[in-house]
Amino acid sequence: MEKPRVGLKDVARLAGVSVKTVSNVVNGYVHVTSATRSRVEAAIKELNYRPNLSARNLRQGRTGIIALAVPELDIPYFAELARLVVSAAEERGLTVLIDQTGASREREQLVAEGFRAHLIDGLIFSPLALTPEDLAARMDDTPMVLLGERVYDGPADHVVVDNVAAAKEATLHLAATGRRRIAAIGAQDDVAAETSRLRLAGYFEALAEVGLPADDRLVQHVDTYHRADGARAMARLLDCGQAPDAVFCFNDLLALGALRTLLERGHDVPGDVALAGFDDIEDGRYATPTLTTISPDKQAIARQAVDQLAARMAKGSQAEAREIRVPYELMIRESTGG
Amino acid sequence: MEKPRVGLKDVARLAGVSVKTVSNVVNGYVHVTSATRSRVEAAIKELNYRPNLSARNLRQGRTGIIALAVPELDIPYFAELARLVVSAAEERGLTVLIDQTGASREREQLVAEGFRAHLIDGLIFSPLALTPEDLAARMDDTPMVLLGERVYDGPADHVVVDNVAAAKEATLHLAATGRRRIAAIGAQDDVAAETSRLRLAGYFEALAEVGLPADDRLVQHVDTYHRADGARAMARLLDCGQAPDAVFCFNDLLALGALRTLLERGHDVPGDVALAGFDDIEDGRYATPTLTTISPDKQAIARQAVDQLAARMAKGSQAEAREIRVPYELMIRESTGG
Repeated sequence: MEKPRVGLKDVARLAGVSVKTVSNVVNGYVHVTSATRSRVEAAIKELNYRPNLSARNLRQGRTGIIALAVPELDIPYFAELARLVVSAAEERGLTVLIDQTGASREREQLVAEGFRAHLIDGLIFSPLALTPEDLAARMDDTPMVLLGERVYDGPADHVVVDNVAAAKEATLHLAATGRRRIAAIGAQDDVAAETSRLRLAGYFEALAEVGLPADDRLVQHVDTYHRADGARAMARLLDCGQAPDAVFCFNDLLALGALRTLLERGHDVPGDVALAGFDDIEDGRYATPTLTTISPDKQAIARQAVDQLAARMAKGSQAEAREIRVPYELMIRESTGG
Repeated sequence: MEKPRVGLKDVARLAGVSVKTVSNVVNGYVHVTSATRSRVEAAIKELNYRPNLSARNLRQGRTGIIALAVPELDIPYFAELARLVVSAAEERGLTVLIDQTGASREREQLVAEGFRAHLIDGLIFSPLALTPEDLAARMDDTPMVLLGERVYDGPADHVVVDNVAAAKEATLHLAATGRRRIAAIGAQDDVAAETSRLRLAGYFEALAEVGLPADDRLVQHVDTYHRADGARAMARLLDCGQAPDAVFCFNDLLALGALRTLLERGHDVPGDVALAGFDDIEDGRYATPTLTTISPDKQAIARQAVDQLAARMAKGSQAEAREIRVPYELMIRESTGG
C-alpha cells in the first residue's frame, strides 16, 4: 500500500514555519538560523519527508552539494581542514562531497575540468600537481575556490597563507637559537610542487638574511610529505658525515618522521638537533619533544573558502578573482628549546 | 553561441567502445576494467561531456553516490578508513560523499533515517551514539552497511572486528610482560558507547584469566577518544597515589596522550609503565617509543563494506543481514618492550 507522499506543506505545518523556509532548509541556499533549521529538520524526520532532488535539479539546476578536493584524507592537515570545511558548509546548509585526488595530476585535471559538475554547485580545491597551464585551460564554469598558494593569475579565487614569509620566519627562529648548519627537508623536483618551491625560497631568504651559506647538501628532496619520507631524509642527513644542528621540515609529518630517526639513533632534540615543522597538526603538540611549527589559521582558511564560494555561487563567476590571505603564527615548542 | 550537446555516442566513438560501456562508466554500476575506464574518461575529458544526472535520476533512480558517515574525519583511524573506502568505491565507479556526524546521536539518527536518501544509493555507517532502538526504528530502505561492533540483531549488514577478543589479547600481552597493576583508559558512561563497553569487557576477561584483581580505580572514564582525554586520564592515574605499571588504552590517540603525560613527568616507557593502544594508526608507528597496538585489517574493512554494500544495492535489501568479521593482529612494539 502506497502512503500519500509527504510534501513541503506538511513539513511547514508541523514545524510552524512557511513553505519557503522549509524549502530554504532543504535546498540550503540561504542562511537559516540554527534553531529554525533544527525545527524543520525535526519535522522532516518525523514525517519522513524526502525532497524530490531530481525535480529540483531540473527546475533550479542546483544540488546543495559542494565538493572539497584534497590530495589525501589521511594527511592530518587535510583531515583537520576537511572537518572545518564540513562544519562551515553545514552552517550554510551545504553538503560537502569529499574528493581524494591522490595528488595525481590526471585526477586533479578531472576535478578542475568539472567531471562532476552535474553533481555540485561549487568546488573547493587544494591542488598539488596541477600546472598554471592546466588551470588556465579550465573550461568548466562551476564556481571554484583554490586553497594554497596562488598558482596563476587567472580567474579563480584562492585562500592562502604566505608560504615564503612563514618558512623564512621558521628558519630565522632556528638561526636565532644559535644554529649554524640548518638543513631543510621537503624540496621536490616536480615543477608543479608550488608549496615546496615557496617554502624552499623562504628558507634560502632566511639563510641569506643571517649570513649563513646555502649548502645544497643540507637540502633534502622527498617524493611525498609523509612521516616515512622525513625519517629517510633525516637518516641521509645524519649519514652524510656533516650532521646539521637544526632542520626545518616543510610539514609536520616530515618533522615527526625526522624526529623518530633522531631519537632512534640516540640524538637529543633539541640538544643536538633542533626541529621545526609546518601545519601545526595535533600530533606535533603531543610528541615528545613537542614540535615547533608554523600554525596557519585553519579555521579561517575553511571559513573564508566556504564564504567566498557561497558568494561566487550567488553572484556567478564573472566578478574578479580574489586572493584572500589568512594569518599564520610561529608556535615555539620544545623541539627548538621553547 | 551554444555548442551542440555532446552525447554518449560521441564519447563511445572517440573511446572506441560501445555506448553501453560509456554508460556503465558514467553510471558506475558494473565493474569496468580500469584500462577501459581510463579510455572512456579520457574521451569524456576531451569532449567535455557532461552526463545529465537529473534525467538519469528520473529514469533510473540512481546517483552513483554512496555516503560514508563517520564520527570525525580528524580522528586518524577514520581518516585512514575513509581513504580506503574512497579507493575501494572508486574501483567500482562509485563516488563517496563523506558525512561527519560528530558522534551526535541526533546527526546519526538523521543519517540512519535517510535524510539524504534522495542523493545516495547506499550508506556505509560507523555509528557511535545510536542505540539499538534507534536502528530498529529505521524506516529508510536505502541499503546500509554498518562498521563496528554489531549493535542489534536487525536487518543491517555489519563489518566488525572482535573487540572483546582483541582487547583481551592486548591486556594478556601486558600481563605476560610481568605487569600486575594494569590500568584501562577509555571507559565511557554513555550506554550507547558499544565499542568502549566491549573493549572494557575484554580487559576484565583478561584480568580474570590471569588472576589479577579488577580494581575500579585503575579504570579511567573519558568523554571522547582524543589525545587530550588520554593525557588527562593518565595524569589522574599518576596522581591517585598508586600508579599503574601498565595501561591498555582503548584507542591509539588515548595512548599517545597518555604517553605524552608519562614522558613529560619523567617516567620511562616501558620501564616504569608499559602502554598498549588500539587501531594501529601511523602516528603510533613513529612515536618514541613506538606504540604496541591492536591492528584491525582496515583494508579488509573498507573492501568488505563496499563489496557488501554493492551487493546489497544490486540485490535489494531483502536478503538476510550478514555479519562479516575481519581479522586483527597484536603489533608488539617498543612501548611494551617489543
